[in-house]
Amino acid sequence: MISGEGPRGLSMKDVAAPSCGPDELRVGVKASALNRADLLQTLGLYPAPAGVPSDIPGLEYAGEVLEVGARVTRWKKGDRVMGLVAGGAWAEQLVTHEREAIAMPEGLEFSRAAAIPEAFITSFDALALQGQLTAGTQVLIHAVASGVGTAALQLCALFGARPIGTGRNAAKLERATHLGLRDTVLVNAEQPHFADRVKALTSGRGVDLVLDLVGGDWLPQTLDAMAPQGTLMLVGLVAGASAEVPLRTVLGKRLTVIGTTLRARPLEEKIAVARSFEQLLVPHFKTTRLAPVIDRVVPIVEAPAALERLAANDSFGKTVLTW
Amino acid sequence: MISGEGPRGLSMKDVAAPSCGPDELRVGVKASALNRADLLQTLGLYPAPAGVPSDIPGLEYAGEVLEVGARVTRWKKGDRVMGLVAGGAWAEQLVTHEREAIAMPEGLEFSRAAAIPEAFITSFDALALQGQLTAGTQVLIHAVASGVGTAALQLCALFGARPIGTGRNAAKLERATHLGLRDTVLVNAEQPHFADRVKALTSGRGVDLVLDLVGGDWLPQTLDAMAPQGTLMLVGLVAGASAEVPLRTVLGKRLTVIGTTLRARPLEEKIAVARSFEQLLVPHFKTTRLAPVIDRVVPIVEAPAALERLAANDSFGKTVLTW
Repeated sequence: MISGEGPRGLSMKDVAAPSCGPDELRVGVKASALNRADLLQTLGLYPAPAGVPSDIPGLEYAGEVLEVGARVTRWKKGDRVMGLVAGGAWAEQLVTHEREAIAMPEGLEFSRAAAIPEAFITSFDALALQGQLTAGTQVLIHAVASGVGTAALQLCALFGARPIGTGRNAAKLERATHLGLRDTVLVNAEQPHFADRVKALTSGRGVDLVLDLVGGDWLPQTLDAMAPQGTLMLVGLVAGASAEVPLRTVLGKRLTVIGTTLRARPLEEKIAVARSFEQLLVPHFKTTRLAPVIDRVVPIVEAPAALERLAANDSFGKTVLTW
Repeated sequence: MISGEGPRGLSMKDVAAPSCGPDELRVGVKASALNRADLLQTLGLYPAPAGVPSDIPGLEYAGEVLEVGARVTRWKKGDRVMGLVAGGAWAEQLVTHEREAIAMPEGLEFSRAAAIPEAFITSFDALALQGQLTAGTQVLIHAVASGVGTAALQLCALFGARPIGTGRNAAKLERATHLGLRDTVLVNAEQPHFADRVKALTSGRGVDLVLDLVGGDWLPQTLDAMAPQGTLMLVGLVAGASAEVPLRTVLGKRLTVIGTTLRARPLEEKIAVARSFEQLLVPHFKTTRLAPVIDRVVPIVEAPAALERLAANDSFGKTVLTW
């Protein structure tokens, strides 16, 4: 349960099981994973949307169907599912609309499947569904060592696109190269100016598409690193929620900036994304062209320490919680 | 000719006639019009793109075909045409690609046709081609008394959209209501906060689409005045070329910001816009559902004084130059 006092204020509590509507599944959660939204929520900074458990964090899950509603057609008891929820996944049970649940890739363990939904659906939605990712696209991925970043670089490889990844930690960028990322740009106090290096890696042209998890004071340089008519997908604000934006660059290069978030979308949009993801991308987890990148798997009772590690940017890929 | 010393540095000079390529027309210019880009160019702030006369302002024209290139099929000598050029329209002659030239609306004088291209093509391209303007769309038009603004409000009426116009001059907003604009928001030192008033006019929801000619410190409020998943078309920076942007608003409401400019586009894009405009909108100037809004018509020798008037924001609609 969330106390609002940060990760250390979290505690385990017995609560009533959620009730399962006629179009819903009750899922026995076997694993979940950490997201920055959980961290913010424990600090009282990112309340859950209406209709979602406000006091239980957790935005993604892998588990087993325990019960199906009267009108459910896609699933039966015992099916292995994964997916996104707007909150409440750090619990033994959750309910979700049957069309939001996604079939787990065959042969994958729960603790690996739980690392898929938020990272891969966020990057799939931002890069492919909204950002028109395709073969040859030059893509800049900020914070490439994060869960979303490591998923994004795999999507770039799958789509034949050309990713460049940034990060502030040389060791983590090195690990990203083992996932097939060729071009990395280290950004730190000695080398704060990444735009020129990104342009050098793209023959001076800049990138067509940016997956921006950082925002803040990186934004002017990010815009500078973009090619004419490029698109910036703003999905996170780790570097700050405000930026001094050079509008002449936006206008002169005819750039597009799109803010996006999954959590607060209406049901029909969440379903549409889930269905596209299941159809187009889940098969690739079987062939291992896509694979969850897992920093560590810890028991749910260690969630507070794991959140603090996330806050310190010490992880590479996802931190999974198990029951 | 441009001296770089501002409007008063302009002078009339004899120059060699431009040469007409095989796919081009030589046009005898009968009228042109003023744009902010001309003002900036006289100040040395907005140089012409490569391949365009650098020392002659003028981005739009209406005139008569004097000569057609060997491969030209759409036009013959004596045809009445109008269109955009990237510079050089304040001259007795110009050359343009035959597919960029647009047939003048039947029955319209040159001095009225010259007020059409920049205002109507800019707003058509931004609102309709890029901004998905359609029936019911709630549109915010900043600087609605400008040439582009008065064109945009007519397009909104034509498309069945619902425009709200802002401006800093009550008398000019009053004139805009005579063009059919019902909802206006005066923005001045006493009433600087327009976002709440725009939201009140849209039942609290905000606008779906913004035609933003101002940028600068209006931007945070503009974003605040937008509905979820709204699109801001940034076409001008009269209020400033930089802005402190609340990125959380962009992300949380899933907004899209698109910078756009016509002048520096490649030929194929300019042709595509010109052809769409001729086909879809030119017929409406004949039925008078669309009409150029003209502040005044002055002889070319009065261009310096007219530019100063434009700089002082004293005009309503377009200022036309005639030969």
